[in-house]
Amino acid sequence: MTPAASVTSDVVWLDGRIVPASEATVPLSDRGLTAGEGLFETIRVCGGIPFRLESHVARMRESARALGLPAWDLEGAAAAATPFLRLRGLSEGKLKILATAGPPGGRPTVALLAEPASAPAGPAVLALGPVRALPPGLGAHKTLARLEHRLAQEGAVAAGADEALFLAPDGAVLEGTRTNLFLVRGGSLATPPLDGRILPGITRAVVLELVRGAGIPAEEAPLCREDLARADESFVTGTISGVRAASEILGVRRFDPVPGPITARLATLFNETVRRETAGPRWG
Amino acid sequence: MTPAASVTSDVVWLDGRIVPASEATVPLSDRGLTAGEGLFETIRVCGGIPFRLESHVARMRESARALGLPAWDLEGAAAAATPFLRLRGLSEGKLKILATAGPPGGRPTVALLAEPASAPAGPAVLALGPVRALPPGLGAHKTLARLEHRLAQEGAVAAGADEALFLAPDGAVLEGTRTNLFLVRGGSLATPPLDGRILPGITRAVVLELVRGAGIPAEEAPLCREDLARADESFVTGTISGVRAASEILGVRRFDPVPGPITARLATLFNETVRRETAGPRWG
Repeated sequence: MTPAASVTSDVVWLDGRIVPASEATVPLSDRGLTAGEGLFETIRVCGGIPFRLESHVARMRESARALGLPAWDLEGAAAAATPFLRLRGLSEGKLKILATAGPPGGRPTVALLAEPASAPAGPAVLALGPVRALPPGLGAHKTLARLEHRLAQEGAVAAGADEALFLAPDGAVLEGTRTNLFLVRGGSLATPPLDGRILPGITRAVVLELVRGAGIPAEEAPLCREDLARADESFVTGTISGVRAASEILGVRRFDPVPGPITARLATLFNETVRRETAGPRWG
Repeated sequence: MTPAASVTSDVVWLDGRIVPASEATVPLSDRGLTAGEGLFETIRVCGGIPFRLESHVARMRESARALGLPAWDLEGAAAAATPFLRLRGLSEGKLKILATAGPPGGRPTVALLAEPASAPAGPAVLALGPVRALPPGLGAHKTLARLEHRLAQEGAVAAGADEALFLAPDGAVLEGTRTNLFLVRGGSLATPPLDGRILPGITRAVVLELVRGAGIPAEEAPLCREDLARADESFVTGTISGVRAASEILGVRRFDPVPGPITARLATLFNETVRRETAGPRWG
């Protein structure tokens, strides 16, 4: 079998089987569909290798436990990830793990899907709002309920921004729809804490590792609008964004269009980390 | 064909076709599954007739418009409802309309499902909390994101209650996980307003019609914990609950275990309305 013949561009991995995407289905009664009882992860793929796959799987396992969702065979899915990416012929892009609760009394489902993706070009414009409050702890889980994310994102785009920042009712700035937020002030870093109101981002965690390694002071503490207005630099982190500088927070703060020194340094360190751990080319 | 042979207990209506439930599927890439982009309605069936079907369909249509979801053929689904219930042999129970956005670039889906159900026996014990705040207006739509409802309900049951009441960050008491809340004080009725934070319940609307018809004073106004503590009677309304008296709001108020005069009168009027409009037997 030649390498070309082994590349199958339109298949998914579904509970251990390779299935044409057009034939990959779930029951209409799957509680992932009928009640949003499911989780997903989006994982950056570089040189055919998923970056920090174990961290994504660990987050998913922890969320399943916390929310009373099924104990999916995530280890089986993780073991299948790299062979699946090879079969798909995907070198640069994203891998998605989709886990649904299944029909009442039925079998839960885990799927792997892969598609091309690349980091957005240039810095991000951020927009404050909307306000969001989930029942305690629910914000820490990457569930299938994404409609409010889409609406928030569409609102941001309509306002001329790239990403919306959810606010808590107490005014705390929480996170973007697909990103975590960092501020730099006086040479030190701040990002909202993992208090159950934000997703524990994998890229966020990698950046905090790099910050510690580089000896940059950092604190995880609630951020308010005034903190944003006083920041020297700001960036967002995410699977697709990597470390992406913010050029403006609409109505609050304009930054130098050239990323500040700490943002630029962390973006470089992050890209080096991805390249080193995946042995793949650098994104973006 | 005998009537018995025409009853098919395990089928669904899926985009105009009758399909065995075991063969009814949606694509894995359906955005209803992957992103919660979909809506549902649960409609009481009495004597084989869905009660206030037009109101449910109108709510779904309005939500689809407001949320930028597809313009499903809801009229086609509504026209198929009663024949489908007859085919299913369902006289008393609930009809569900499930509408999903479909795969990216693909066709959206509408399904009808039917199952037996009956009103819960006796009065309800209610529990205050958890706090919830959705982006503006999102609370007015019956989307597929139900995990927070399940968690809230499980929390209420763990506390010894039957139903949880969501609170707003400002302390306003919003609604139950499947019901709207009413209070009675000094012979007049109060229920939270349709300010985008609660679902515009169909049973709630019927009760407000009946209240006006009966000359009972009623206002739609924000309710706080103190209003609950001072109420003479309280009841919840919902498709499955009908008009159900509350016997207690945990930690806030105990009511007479026998439903109060206004609650009892409205429960009777509501059941009469259902029976009259469906020509079916009385539930519960």
